Amino acid sequence: MKILVIGASGTIGRAVVDALSPRHEVVQAGRQSVAHPVDITRHDTVQALFEKIGRVDAIVSTTGSLHFGPLSAMTAAQFQKGLQDKLLGQVDLALTGQHFLNDGGSITLTSGIVSDEPIAQGANATTVNAAIDGFVRGAAVELARGIRINAVSPNVLQESMGVYGAFFPGFEPVPAGRVALAYCRSVEGVQTGRVLRVW
Amino acid sequence: MKILVIGASGTIGRAVVDALSPRHEVVQAGRQSVAHPVDITRHDTVQALFEKIGRVDAIVSTTGSLHFGPLSAMTAAQFQKGLQDKLLGQVDLALTGQHFLNDGGSITLTSGIVSDEPIAQGANATTVNAAIDGFVRGAAVELARGIRINAVSPNVLQESMGVYGAFFPGFEPVPAGRVALAYCRSVEGVQTGRVLRVW
Repeated sequence: MKILVIGASGTIGRAVVDALSPRHEVVQAGRQSVAHPVDITRHDTVQALFEKIGRVDAIVSTTGSLHFGPLSAMTAAQFQKGLQDKLLGQVDLALTGQHFLNDGGSITLTSGIVSDEPIAQGANATTVNAAIDGFVRGAAVELARGIRINAVSPNVLQESMGVYGAFFPGFEPVPAGRVALAYCRSVEGVQTGRVLRVW
Repeated sequence: MKILVIGASGTIGRAVVDALSPRHEVVQAGRQSVAHPVDITRHDTVQALFEKIGRVDAIVSTTGSLHFGPLSAMTAAQFQKGLQDKLLGQVDLALTGQHFLNDGGSITLTSGIVSDEPIAQGANATTVNAAIDGFVRGAAVELARGIRINAVSPNVLQESMGVYGAFFPGFEPVPAGRVALAYCRSVEGVQTGRVLRVW
């Protein structure tokens, strides 16, 4: 398969590239990529990426930013960050990418455990991750030509505990390599409309 | 209680006002309201509404628009409609309104069955409704002073079947008066962080 990974330089992205590369042609894209730059908050760059790369068999997104901060001081303007980046950015990858997928292809997005297990300062993250899980349910029933869509919902990463650990008390960290398996299950498996939880 | 209902002229809003008015002081607001106009997509009007009305014991939102259309032709720009209106508009009512609620007050937002039961042309609706359900989970754990937050998730309304019925094959329509009970349960009850399903 020819697989496009957006966010390929991130912790999860690298693990996904490592897991898929032995069996597939993996095209790595991301904000810092020289060969395949893309900013998912800018539709023109998303469109340009797909036009440059051409048809693919799978699209994997492991990217997207959120707003973290106390609810008591949160504003609608701050809340936009997650809506425009991790949510609408990934939705745009799916909406645009559907037209560049071969028959039977797949789309795999990234949500996260906070959708169902809220944390302090995480209202934006809970909302956005729940929205992504919802989008794959809503999109799966309409995608044409056998195209599938799933979300991978990881727990906090072992690799991120140094930075984010204090926000996830009692959460069981998972290694990125284990999370990558769920992306393989989505890309190489047969399921659609599913949230593949790694927790 | 002094209860602010936003979207009071809608089908659900009217039923909620009817259900709460016998026992409470209900202030009705909405886009078409002469006394208390508000456009939830414009933060300045949300802020102005709360400053005019002053402190309340409960905020009920029964408003918000979505984009409906086939996924194969959906664009990120169209997808914004639900994000900026039904989702961020209601989130803003909660974020802004928390500062105008008395201790022990409540916020009740509106999502909908399509969060979990997708329909054709409904990817935006599924996403937004799931996001609202997520927001109440994420916000409930952080709200101060005993303030609670819930979402009411109605099935398709009997009163709307003439207009929307064809999009909801096999769904069991519910009367707005029955949906209004869930809003009363949220406002007058003790639960928080819950999605109160009327389906």
